[in-house]
Amino acid sequence: MAAISFEVIKTEKHTGARLGILHTPHGSFETPMFMPVGTLATVKTMSPEELKEIGAGVILSNTYHLWLRPGEDIVQEAGGLHTFMNWDRGILTDSGGFQVFSLSKFRKIEEKGVHFRNHLSGEKLFLTPEKSIKIQNALGADIIMAFDECPPYPADYKYVKESTERTSRWAERCLIAHDRPEDQALFGIVQGGMYKDLRKQSAMDLISLDFPGYAIGGLSVGEPKPLMNEVLEFTTPLLPANKPRYLMGVGSPDSLIDGVIRGVDMFDCVLPTRIARNGTVMTSRGRLVVKNATYARDFRPLDENCDCYTCRNYTRAYIRHLIHTNEILGFRLCTYHNLYFLLKLMEQVRQAIREDRLQDFREEFFEQYGFNKPDAKNF
Amino acid sequence: MAAISFEVIKTEKHTGARLGILHTPHGSFETPMFMPVGTLATVKTMSPEELKEIGAGVILSNTYHLWLRPGEDIVQEAGGLHTFMNWDRGILTDSGGFQVFSLSKFRKIEEKGVHFRNHLSGEKLFLTPEKSIKIQNALGADIIMAFDECPPYPADYKYVKESTERTSRWAERCLIAHDRPEDQALFGIVQGGMYKDLRKQSAMDLISLDFPGYAIGGLSVGEPKPLMNEVLEFTTPLLPANKPRYLMGVGSPDSLIDGVIRGVDMFDCVLPTRIARNGTVMTSRGRLVVKNATYARDFRPLDENCDCYTCRNYTRAYIRHLIHTNEILGFRLCTYHNLYFLLKLMEQVRQAIREDRLQDFREEFFEQYGFNKPDAKNF
Repeated sequence: MAAISFEVIKTEKHTGARLGILHTPHGSFETPMFMPVGTLATVKTMSPEELKEIGAGVILSNTYHLWLRPGEDIVQEAGGLHTFMNWDRGILTDSGGFQVFSLSKFRKIEEKGVHFRNHLSGEKLFLTPEKSIKIQNALGADIIMAFDECPPYPADYKYVKESTERTSRWAERCLIAHDRPEDQALFGIVQGGMYKDLRKQSAMDLISLDFPGYAIGGLSVGEPKPLMNEVLEFTTPLLPANKPRYLMGVGSPDSLIDGVIRGVDMFDCVLPTRIARNGTVMTSRGRLVVKNATYARDFRPLDENCDCYTCRNYTRAYIRHLIHTNEILGFRLCTYHNLYFLLKLMEQVRQAIREDRLQDFREEFFEQYGFNKPDAKNF
Repeated sequence: MAAISFEVIKTEKHTGARLGILHTPHGSFETPMFMPVGTLATVKTMSPEELKEIGAGVILSNTYHLWLRPGEDIVQEAGGLHTFMNWDRGILTDSGGFQVFSLSKFRKIEEKGVHFRNHLSGEKLFLTPEKSIKIQNALGADIIMAFDECPPYPADYKYVKESTERTSRWAERCLIAHDRPEDQALFGIVQGGMYKDLRKQSAMDLISLDFPGYAIGGLSVGEPKPLMNEVLEFTTPLLPANKPRYLMGVGSPDSLIDGVIRGVDMFDCVLPTRIARNGTVMTSRGRLVVKNATYARDFRPLDENCDCYTCRNYTRAYIRHLIHTNEILGFRLCTYHNLYFLLKLMEQVRQAIREDRLQDFREEFFEQYGFNKPDAKNF
């Protein structure tokens, strides 16, 4: 039996955006869904109960980081990642590929795998598709990812072509190496940079291998947002309608909505948790840098239209004080709010799909948030 | 009407330890009680709900720190410290005296007050009894403290005598300056170093001013524990039996029990929260440095006899991993456990008073914790 199953409940009339349910060995969640990132087997500052309170059905954890610390053997001995971190809902682990390319200064790519250096100790390491899957099998997430190369932006055609073809060969090796298909669903990752023919080739290669789900990688790597949307718009229709589609590394509110409109079901990004620890929050009226002195005497909640724990109980003045003095509660309150904001946004998006008014919702949201302003921020 | 009232429910048969209830404008709590420290209007890493979960009835916050950041005017504008920090139970603020003497490298004591430097910016500051009370009136805690000097240990007789006499004069000025006696109880602080006649003189001076409660300051400043206990044993009987007694800055399990045995009702200390953030926890079998590599594969809870949230849900291996990787959840889990441990200890102490078996409880606890070992640690 397959590890996961996916039902498309409804397709939005005007955009084709999908409302779905993804069933995993650790519960089901509605899509489109945003996945909070828990790099080191913890979503930074949050407890599992808090994640449940805000409605998180699935989180992402990073294979590369867990491989180094504490080591996948310890996680396995603990009974797997769910038991280790006290989280009984869905988990997705990435393959480590992205970190190898983004965190290591030195790297050498071979057909067999990638030589690189541990970003903490400098020690030489070698990661292959087989090794990545072996680690992910030990960690035991519900969804695991094929080991791929994420080419930089910009990159020339020849480089991206060779990389994408290798990623396809690696994807097949991942499938062969995968030991637990009955309780872990392995997703393939479509690459191809900004080149449509390579995106198409990548999609065809992976579809022929019949993965239970497909990710779109290599976007949100520095390219302009219109270009990302264009590539996405070209790519998602190539993928099977009955399988979940996951856009990797995207978490700004505008890109989430624009991704859903283009047929994406799952997203992850460190954005909401990372900016929170720097005292920046997302609100219905745009982003707010609460650590700024201007909020020292502002006794309103972070977002006057928000009903989250943070906004029900604390003022900007208090949170500004906490962030200003590096108090952990400040990081907690901002993180809680930002994750709530994005999960609530996805709930609103799902409702808009149900009611066939996703484009209208997009317009209203963009207007309120300030994305339509000439000097609009990135998130 | 007075801000607080104190009832002694029972006096233990063999030791004279007291079981009491202290009623404040923000609820009542049983004594003996340990007060978690929330220096900057937050008990580091903890939410107010978590503090309630573990049974905290009163917390301490630091006047000096809040004076500098965010400033008592902002706290007052927010509606006072309770509203500012979303805590509707008891709060006690210290006077700032201790921080002036412990945090500032430069200081000059005059009869009027103390010149010193802001430990953050180096800016010159001047704190007087009147100023300390004015700040504490603005913060609005249920219990506030007289501005005193805490002499170092060791200190010669002449120095301590002059300091203690000045502290008595300052105490009277605090009483006169105090603007909100109907909703804030001002405690006097007995000083006198390790000199019994000075302790006696200090106690007599303060009692003549009829404070609603008395603290014992100038202990736990580096002197040997037997000496602290000796001074305590001499001092508490000098204080009125119908008023609460608060031993400042004490939080190691042995000293808490030994303080209660000598008639103390309230304690505070940063110890449990500070060591937690360094990966050290208190357990029924003594302290445990969970960040040590030896716990990397230890899948038992921090304390096998503990039923706190941390111990019910997480292993030493997981917490060790979190502390090792500087993850905030690790600091949260250890802090939660340590505070639970001390509040539970005080509950056990109260039960032992009820049952007139405090000495036996002390013996059992000391034996289990390891305080009777020749190489016993300080906590």
